[in-house]
Amino acid sequence: MEKLLSGDRVAVARAISVVENGEGEARALLRSLFARTGRGYRIGITGPPGAGKSTLTSRLALHYRARGLGVGIIAVDPTSPFSGGALLGDRVRMGDLETDTGVFIRSMASRGSLGGLSRTAVEAADVLDAAGKDIILMETVGVGQSELDIAGAADTTVVVLVPESGDSIQAMKAGLMEIADFFVLNKADRPGAEQAVMSIQMILHFREAAEWNPSVLKATASTGAGITEIAALIEGHRAHIERSGALESKRRKRIAQRITGLVSETLRVDFWTPERKAMLVRRMDAVMRLVSSPYDVADELVDHFKSQ
Amino acid sequence: MEKLLSGDRVAVARAISVVENGEGEARALLRSLFARTGRGYRIGITGPPGAGKSTLTSRLALHYRARGLGVGIIAVDPTSPFSGGALLGDRVRMGDLETDTGVFIRSMASRGSLGGLSRTAVEAADVLDAAGKDIILMETVGVGQSELDIAGAADTTVVVLVPESGDSIQAMKAGLMEIADFFVLNKADRPGAEQAVMSIQMILHFREAAEWNPSVLKATASTGAGITEIAALIEGHRAHIERSGALESKRRKRIAQRITGLVSETLRVDFWTPERKAMLVRRMDAVMRLVSSPYDVADELVDHFKSQ
Repeated sequence: MEKLLSGDRVAVARAISVVENGEGEARALLRSLFARTGRGYRIGITGPPGAGKSTLTSRLALHYRARGLGVGIIAVDPTSPFSGGALLGDRVRMGDLETDTGVFIRSMASRGSLGGLSRTAVEAADVLDAAGKDIILMETVGVGQSELDIAGAADTTVVVLVPESGDSIQAMKAGLMEIADFFVLNKADRPGAEQAVMSIQMILHFREAAEWNPSVLKATASTGAGITEIAALIEGHRAHIERSGALESKRRKRIAQRITGLVSETLRVDFWTPERKAMLVRRMDAVMRLVSSPYDVADELVDHFKSQ
Repeated sequence: MEKLLSGDRVAVARAISVVENGEGEARALLRSLFARTGRGYRIGITGPPGAGKSTLTSRLALHYRARGLGVGIIAVDPTSPFSGGALLGDRVRMGDLETDTGVFIRSMASRGSLGGLSRTAVEAADVLDAAGKDIILMETVGVGQSELDIAGAADTTVVVLVPESGDSIQAMKAGLMEIADFFVLNKADRPGAEQAVMSIQMILHFREAAEWNPSVLKATASTGAGITEIAALIEGHRAHIERSGALESKRRKRIAQRITGLVSETLRVDFWTPERKAMLVRRMDAVMRLVSSPYDVADELVDHFKSQ
C-alpha cells in the first residue's frame, strides 16, 4: 500500500490487475485507497475509430510531462495503439512515453468484451489518482453507451473528430454532444477540415446556451499542432468548473452512481445463490414451451428471495 | 390485444409506445403477449455509421415483402434515415416501404440517450413477433456494448462494412467479430472493396474453426446488387442453427438473461425506497470529505435493506 501510494510502477500495475480481476480483493483495495483519491484530474479523450485519439493522448501526456506533472493513461479502445493495434508510426511516437517512468500507461481493451470495462476503467483511474498521478487521461471509443459512461467519469471530456467524421457528427446529436466539453477537429491539414468545423459549430449553435459553451479547436496531433491550445482549453474548463461548483457536483454525482452500482452488485451476488440458480434452470423449459413467461419466473424468484 | 395480435398497425404502434414508456404497464403487456412470441425470425443488421445499414435493411424488407412475408423494422441508430436523419435519396428509396401496410417501421433512436434502448428494442421485437411479423429486422450502430447487446438479441446477425471501414475492421477484433454470423462488404463498387474483403477474410482466417464459419459477401445496397445472395445466406444460417439446436440455445440464453434482468430491476425498485434514498443523500457529504468511502455507504444501505 505504501509503495502504491508513492507511485511505485510495479505496485500500481499490480493494483490495477487486482481491480481488473474484480471480486472481494478489488473491493477491499479500492475501499482502502479511496481516502487518497480526488487530487488527480481526469481528462476523457473520446471519438470515433481513426480520429487520432491515441496520438492526441500521447501528445497531451508529453505536454504535461514537460511541465513536471505525473501522468496516467487508461486506454479503453480496441483500436488504440496502446492496446497493441499499433501501426509502426504510432509505436515510434509512443516510444518517448514508454520509457518515461513518470507516465503509467494501461490498456484495458485487450480483454475482449467491452462489458464491465467502463467500471473497471473508473476504478483504475482511482488507483492512478491514489498513486499520485496529477493528470489521468482516459482514451475511449466514443459511440456506445459504455463508452459514454467512461466519458461521464472524466472531469473534462474532449471529443476528437476528423474531416471524414461526417456520419459521426450526425451520431453526435444523440450521444457525444451530451458529453463534450469541447471538440477537437484533428487531422486539420486534410481536405474538408473547414467544412467539418463549420458542421460542428452549426450543431453547437442550436444548443441551448449554458454556463459552459463547447467550442471547436483545430489540431494536427501527428505534428503537435494545436496541442498547447487544447491543454489551455482544458485548463480553462477546469478553472471554470472548479469556480462554478460544477466539478464538485460532477464528482458528487459520480460517487452516488458508484454507490448505487455497488448496491446493485451486492444484491445480485446475494440473490443468485446456487438454490435460485437451480430454480431458474428448472423453470426454463416451461418458458421455452411458452407455458410460463419470463415475468412469471422473475416474480417467483423474487418472492422466494423476500420470503427468506 | 385482439387487434395487436392480428397485426393492426395502430395497436402495434401503441403497444410499442407502452413498452417505451416502461413501468408496470409495459410489464403487464409483455407478460400477456409472451405466449404469442417465438415465430418471428430476428435479423440484426449492424455496423459502423455510414456503412449503408438502412439502405440494406430497406432492400431486405422489400425482398421479404415480395415473397409475401410480414416485416417489422426496428432502428436503434441515431444515424439511420429511419430516425429522421435521411438524405433525400434514402427517403425516396424508403417510400415504397412506408406506404406498404405489410411493413411496420419503428425508430427508437430519437429519444436521445442510448441507455436502456437495447432492452426496449428487444421488447419491441417481442411486440412485432406477437403481432405476426415473420421477419424482424433490427438495425443498430455496431460499436458499443448496448449495440452489441441488441445484436445478441438477433437470431442471425449481419455485420455491414464498407471499403472505408479500415479502423472499424480493427475494432471488430474486439467486438463485432464475436457477434457476426456473416459480413457484408457494402458499396462494393467503390475503390478498395477487394482489399477490404481480403482484410476481413484474413481476420476470419485466424478464428478457430466452429460449427458455423462466417464468410464475407459483397453488395451494393443502393442498386440492390447482392441482396438475393444476402437473403440466401441468412436463410442458410437459419436452417443451420435450427438443425444444430443453436437457435434454441440462443433463445434459451436470451430468455435467461431477460429473467435475470427483470430480477435486477425488481430488486432495484424495491431497494430504493424514499427512506434509503434519503440515507444516501445524508451520507454523501462524508464521502465527499473522504471520511467515508462509497464502499462503506453501500454496505450500510444493504445492511439496512436486509434487516427489514
